[in-house]
Amino acid sequence: MTHKVAILGASGYTGAELVRLIDLHPNIEVAALGAERKAGMSMAQVFPHLRHLDLPVLCKISEIDFSAIDLCFCALPHKTSQEVISALPSSVKVVDLSADFRLRDPAEYEKWYGNPHSAVALQETAVYGLTEFYREEIKSARLVAGTGCNAATGQFALRPLIADGVIDLDDIILDMKCAVSGAGRSPKENLLHAELSEGYHPYAIGSTHRHLGEFDQEFSAIAGRPVKVQFTPHLVPANRGILATVYVKGDAAAIHASFAKAYTDEPFVELLPMGEVPSTRHVRGSNFCHIGVAADRIEGRTIVTAALDNLTKGSSGQALQNANLMLGEEETTGLTIAPLFP
Amino acid sequence: MTHKVAILGASGYTGAELVRLIDLHPNIEVAALGAERKAGMSMAQVFPHLRHLDLPVLCKISEIDFSAIDLCFCALPHKTSQEVISALPSSVKVVDLSADFRLRDPAEYEKWYGNPHSAVALQETAVYGLTEFYREEIKSARLVAGTGCNAATGQFALRPLIADGVIDLDDIILDMKCAVSGAGRSPKENLLHAELSEGYHPYAIGSTHRHLGEFDQEFSAIAGRPVKVQFTPHLVPANRGILATVYVKGDAAAIHASFAKAYTDEPFVELLPMGEVPSTRHVRGSNFCHIGVAADRIEGRTIVTAALDNLTKGSSGQALQNANLMLGEEETTGLTIAPLFP
Amino acid sequence: MTHKVAILGASGYTGAELVRLIDLHPNIEVAALGAERKAGMSMAQVFPHLRHLDLPVLCKISEIDFSAIDLCFCALPHKTSQEVISALPSSVKVVDLSADFRLRDPAEYEKWYGNPHSAVALQETAVYGLTEFYREEIKSARLVAGTGCNAATGQFALRPLIADGVIDLDDIILDMKCAVSGAGRSPKENLLHAELSEGYHPYAIGSTHRHLGEFDQEFSAIAGRPVKVQFTPHLVPANRGILATVYVKGDAAAIHASFAKAYTDEPFVELLPMGEVPSTRHVRGSNFCHIGVAADRIEGRTIVTAALDNLTKGSSGQALQNANLMLGEEETTGLTIAPLFP
Amino acid sequence: MTHKVAILGASGYTGAELVRLIDLHPNIEVAALGAERKAGMSMAQVFPHLRHLDLPVLCKISEIDFSAIDLCFCALPHKTSQEVISALPSSVKVVDLSADFRLRDPAEYEKWYGNPHSAVALQETAVYGLTEFYREEIKSARLVAGTGCNAATGQFALRPLIADGVIDLDDIILDMKCAVSGAGRSPKENLLHAELSEGYHPYAIGSTHRHLGEFDQEFSAIAGRPVKVQFTPHLVPANRGILATVYVKGDAAAIHASFAKAYTDEPFVELLPMGEVPSTRHVRGSNFCHIGVAADRIEGRTIVTAALDNLTKGSSGQALQNANLMLGEEETTGLTIAPLFP
Repeated sequence: MTHKVAILGASGYTGAELVRLIDLHPNIEVAALGAERKAGMSMAQVFPHLRHLDLPVLCKISEIDFSAIDLCFCALPHKTSQEVISALPSSVKVVDLSADFRLRDPAEYEKWYGNPHSAVALQETAVYGLTEFYREEIKSARLVAGTGCNAATGQFALRPLIADGVIDLDDIILDMKCAVSGAGRSPKENLLHAELSEGYHPYAIGSTHRHLGEFDQEFSAIAGRPVKVQFTPHLVPANRGILATVYVKGDAAAIHASFAKAYTDEPFVELLPMGEVPSTRHVRGSNFCHIGVAADRIEGRTIVTAALDNLTKGSSGQALQNANLMLGEEETTGLTIAPLFP
Repeated sequence: MTHKVAILGASGYTGAELVRLIDLHPNIEVAALGAERKAGMSMAQVFPHLRHLDLPVLCKISEIDFSAIDLCFCALPHKTSQEVISALPSSVKVVDLSADFRLRDPAEYEKWYGNPHSAVALQETAVYGLTEFYREEIKSARLVAGTGCNAATGQFALRPLIADGVIDLDDIILDMKCAVSGAGRSPKENLLHAELSEGYHPYAIGSTHRHLGEFDQEFSAIAGRPVKVQFTPHLVPANRGILATVYVKGDAAAIHASFAKAYTDEPFVELLPMGEVPSTRHVRGSNFCHIGVAADRIEGRTIVTAALDNLTKGSSGQALQNANLMLGEEETTGLTIAPLFP
Repeated sequence: MTHKVAILGASGYTGAELVRLIDLHPNIEVAALGAERKAGMSMAQVFPHLRHLDLPVLCKISEIDFSAIDLCFCALPHKTSQEVISALPSSVKVVDLSADFRLRDPAEYEKWYGNPHSAVALQETAVYGLTEFYREEIKSARLVAGTGCNAATGQFALRPLIADGVIDLDDIILDMKCAVSGAGRSPKENLLHAELSEGYHPYAIGSTHRHLGEFDQEFSAIAGRPVKVQFTPHLVPANRGILATVYVKGDAAAIHASFAKAYTDEPFVELLPMGEVPSTRHVRGSNFCHIGVAADRIEGRTIVTAALDNLTKGSSGQALQNANLMLGEEETTGLTIAPLFP
Repeated sequence: MTHKVAILGASGYTGAELVRLIDLHPNIEVAALGAERKAGMSMAQVFPHLRHLDLPVLCKISEIDFSAIDLCFCALPHKTSQEVISALPSSVKVVDLSADFRLRDPAEYEKWYGNPHSAVALQETAVYGLTEFYREEIKSARLVAGTGCNAATGQFALRPLIADGVIDLDDIILDMKCAVSGAGRSPKENLLHAELSEGYHPYAIGSTHRHLGEFDQEFSAIAGRPVKVQFTPHLVPANRGILATVYVKGDAAAIHASFAKAYTDEPFVELLPMGEVPSTRHVRGSNFCHIGVAADRIEGRTIVTAALDNLTKGSSGQALQNANLMLGEEETTGLTIAPLFP
C-alpha cells in the first residue's frame, strides 16, 4: 500500500531533502508539493538536481486536495506553520518541521519566537519528534513536531547522561559548529558565498539561540528540575553538518557506558570507541549521528562530541523516520543510505 | 541470488564509492576488500563514514579466495592493475577502474602511460566500459575497462554528434573543470587543502592529459578517420564533479536533436532544454549526467556542456552499472539515488 | 601633498577593496564614503575587517561636499553611475567602476545594458581605463571608465596578439572561470553559500555576457575590422579570481614573443615561461596579472591562460592605478602588495 | 639602514608569509632563503605568488654566510630548530618560529614534544615571543621564541583576565576552531582537500594538544599558582584563521574592562563593543587580533571570543613584530596592512 504525502514548503532545502529521501522509499508517494511563491514551477526548475524524478508541479497550498493525502510534511516558516496546520483536515497526519509545536508551554514559545501562539489546543496534542526518545508516542500521534537541528544534536549528546545522572547538571556547555544550509534558502547578505567562504564566527552569543527553549524543556523534564545549559553556535563554511562539542563534568567511562546502554539498539546512532571523535564529513547526506566520548586531562571532566547532518538526521531524515512510525512502516525505510564522502 | 564481489584498492575513493553504492543493491554482497598497505584495518578505520556497515576487514589481495568471488572490481593504480588481473582465475568477471585496459593499441598505451603493456592478450578481450555505447558487448564480457572520468564526460558530450556528422571534426575544444577527488587519496603537496582552496588553475596544458588516448581511440573509431580534439583540464576547489564546456562548429538545433535521439531512453543521461546549462552540484553523488546545448552568437558555433560526478558516473557508478549487466541484473539497480544538494 | 578622495558605493566589495588599497597609499586620504542605504553606519559596521582604520562615517551622496574632493571613485550600479557622475562638479576627477562609460557607442551601450544612455556628451570625454594600454590618455583624463573584470582579463590575454597579427581573428574562444565576489554583495538566492559551495556551472551561455561589448569595441579597434570572440564565463566556488583559458590559432613562440614585447616593462603583468600556467591563488589580493602560453598538440594552436584578482587588478586596483596617473602620483603607489597565499 | 635577514625553512607557509610581509618593510632585506630539500629552486618555483619579487635562490643552510646576516627567522620543524640555532654565530639575532624555545622547563618540553632538549643553556636565554606581554625583554633579546598560534590566541583572550583576577581559574575552557594552513605544507592524507573540504572535526581531544604546555607555563606564571585549562581544537575547512571561544566564570563587564585596560594602546589588538563577536574573515592576512566579550544568560558566566590569522599574528606577523623590536625599528612597520575580505 502506498501512502500519499504532501510537502508544504517544497522550495526550501528541507523540502528538497524530503523529496530526495522519499524517492528511496518504496511505499510513499509525493502527491503534492506546496510552495506559495514558486507555485506553477516544476521541481526541476526549483531544484535541478531532482529533474530526473516524476513529481507534481509546485502549487499553492490552497490548491491541494488534502482528502487524498495521508500525511503532510510541513516545512514552512514558524508562525505560518501553525496557521496552515490548524486548517488541515483532521484526517491528515502531520509532521511539522517548523518550530511551532516544539515547545509545550505557550509562554516559552512566545518568549523565544516573539509572537503569541495561535493554536494552543493543537499544540497540546503534538508529540516532540526526537524519534529515539518519543518512539511510542509518535506511533500514535496525529501531529509530530520535528526538533530543531541543533536541539537534536545536543539532545543526542546529553539526554542519556542526564537521565542516568552521570554529569553535573549545572555546568553543561554546548559549543556547536553549524553548516550554512541550516540558515535556509532565503537570500540574505550574511549568507552569501563571498561573505562566508574561508571564514567562521560565533552567533547568537550568550545563549540566546531559540533552540535553547527545547533544551530547557527537555533537559528539565528528564532531570525533574530546571536545567539550563550554555549554548554557542558557530557558522562554518560548509553546507551540511552540525558538530557539537559538549563540555561536562562527569566520569568518561560512566558517560560512555550510559551512551552504550541508550544507543546499542538504535539503528541511526553510532557510539564511537572511547577517545575517538566524529566528523561532519562522515555523516553527510545520511540519517546517522556519530557520538564520541573522551576524558579530559583534568580529572572528572569529559568532552562529548556529536555530529549529524542538519538537513537529514537534524530535519528531513528525522521527519521521514517519524512519518514511517506514524504510517506503520518500518522506521528505517528510505533512510539507510550511506553518507557521501568525499 | 546474491552475487559476491571483491573490491581491490578498497582504501581509495573509488573503492569507498563502490561500497556506498553496493550497499543500496539488494543482490550484491561485498565479500572481500583488498588494500595492500592498509590490510588488517577495518573499513571503519579507513573510511569512518561507512562504519555502520557490516564489511569484511581489509586484507592483502593474496589472502582473498577468488573461487568464492563472482566479480572483482579492480580500483588499483595502472600497471599494478594489469598484473593483478592477469593473475585472477578466469572464472572471476572483472570490472577494472584503472587505465590499463582502456586503450586497444598497446603502443598507444605505452605512449600515454610510459610503460609497455604486460598483458596484451588480456587487453584484446577487454570491452571499453562506457555503458551507454557498449551495452551489448559488456553483457557478455569477462573483463570491462572502466573509462577515465574526463573521458566519460567528453564522450557523453561528443559521441552522438560525431556519429551523426553534425559537427566539424577538426575543430573540437574540450575545456574541463575537474574536482579534486579525481586526483585520488595519495598525499601530495599540490592536493593539500591549503594549496587548493580558494584557487584554481589549468593543468596538463597543451592537450597532454592521458585521457586523450581514449578520446583519440573512440572518436576516430566512430568517425572512421583520425579525430584529434583539444582538451584542457582545470582543477577547481570542490570535491566531486566534472564540467565539460565543449566548443564545436555545428548547428545547435541539429546538435540538440542528435542528443535527443541518442539519450531519450537512457536512464542516466538527462538532456536539458535548449539554452539551459548543467551544474556539477546538481549531479553530485549520483549516476546522472546532465547535458546542455546552446547556440553561440556567432552563427554555426555551438557550446555543449556536460556535468557528472567523477566518482559516480565517471567511475564507481559506471563500474556498478557495468557489473549489473555482466551479472544479469537490471542495469540501474543500486544506482538511482538522487544527487545530494546542497 | 595629500589628495582627498570620495568613494561612492562604499558598502560594496569594490568600495571596501579601494579602502584597503588606499590605506597603503601615503598620499591619498579617504575624505568621504557614500552609501545610500547604509548611510549613517560606520565602516566598521559594514566591513568589520576595516575597523582599525580611522574612516569617515558612511553618508548619502547628497551630503558630500565635493568642493573638497580631488577625485571620486564611483562604485555604483550602472545607470545610477551616469546620473551621479553627471551631477558632479567638473573640478572633481572621476574614476568610474561601473559599466556606464566603457562603451563609446551609445547604441552598443543600450544593446548590452538595456537602457538608453543619459549622459552621451560625458561619455565622449571618457577614457577607457585599461591602464597598460591607455596610459597617456588616462593621465590627462577627467573621467576614466574602469573596465569589466572579465574584460580586463581577456584583453590582457589578447590585445598584443591582435595588435601583432599573430593569431587568427575569426577563431578566438575565451573560456573564463570567475570567482563569486564579482557578482557583488546584493543578496540573491543563486549567490548563497549553500547554492555555490562545492559546485560550478557556466552562465551567460552563448556569448551573451555584457563584457562582450568591451571585447567587440576594443578588439575591433585594434584590428581595424570587426572582431567577434566567443566568451563563456563559469562561476567557481572561490571568492576572488578570474582565470581565462583562451583558445587561439597561432604559433606559440610568436605569441609568447608578442607578450614579452608588450609586457616586459609592465610592473603588474607577469609573463610566465613557455608552458607554465597561472593560478588565481597566486594573484589573490594583488594587482598582478599572470599570463601563460602553451602550444597545443595540434600544430598551429595555442592556449593562452591569464589570471588576476577580479576585485584588485580587475576593478579597484585598476581604479587606483588610474587614479595615481590622474593625480600625478607614481602609477604603482599603494599597489605593490604581494598576493595572499595560502 | 637596511637590516639583512635570513629565513630558514623558506619553503613552508610561515616562510612565505615572512617574505610577503617583509616586502612591505622599507628597512629589511631578505638576504638568504634556506630550504634543505628545495635548495637550488627559485622562490617563484616554490611559491609562484611571490614571483614578482627579486629574491635570493633557495639554498642549504650550510651555504649561508651568516656573518652578513643581522637577524635570522627560523621556520624549521621543532628539534631541528634547536640544533640549527645552536650552531649560529652569536652575532646573529634569532626569531624562532618553532616550538623549541617556548617552554622554559626542559622537562615540560620533553613531556609535550617527546624528545629531550639538546640546547638547554640556549633555552635559558630565550624570551617568550608574545610581543604585547614581553615587549621590553624582546627589545634586548638575542633569541626570541615565537609562540604557538593557538597559544597566542588563547593568551590574548585570557592573560589580562588572569592577571586582574576577574575569572575563576579552575574552570576555563578554550574551544578553538583552526584553519588548515596551521598544519603546514607537508603532504598528509588527512590534510588533502578531498578529506577536509565540507567537513570539520575536533582533534587532540581531551586537552592533549602541545600548545597546552604554553598555556600551563604562562597562565600559572601570571596567577602565581598552577592553572590548567581545557583546550579542544577543531579543524575547519578554511585556510587561515583561528577562532577561540572561551568559556569563563566571571562578570562580563569586569572582563570587558580588563581587556580595555590591557589593549587600549595596543596597535594590533582590537576590543569589540560588548556583545559583538569577531570573525576569522575579518582578520585574514593581517596582524590584527579581534576580541569580543558577551555575558551568558546564566549569571556569572561570560564568553570571550578571539580571532586572528594563524600565519600572520599567530606566527610570521608576530615574528616580524618581534624582529622590529630587536632591530630597533618601529614595532608596527610592515605590519599595518588591512585584512583581505572577501
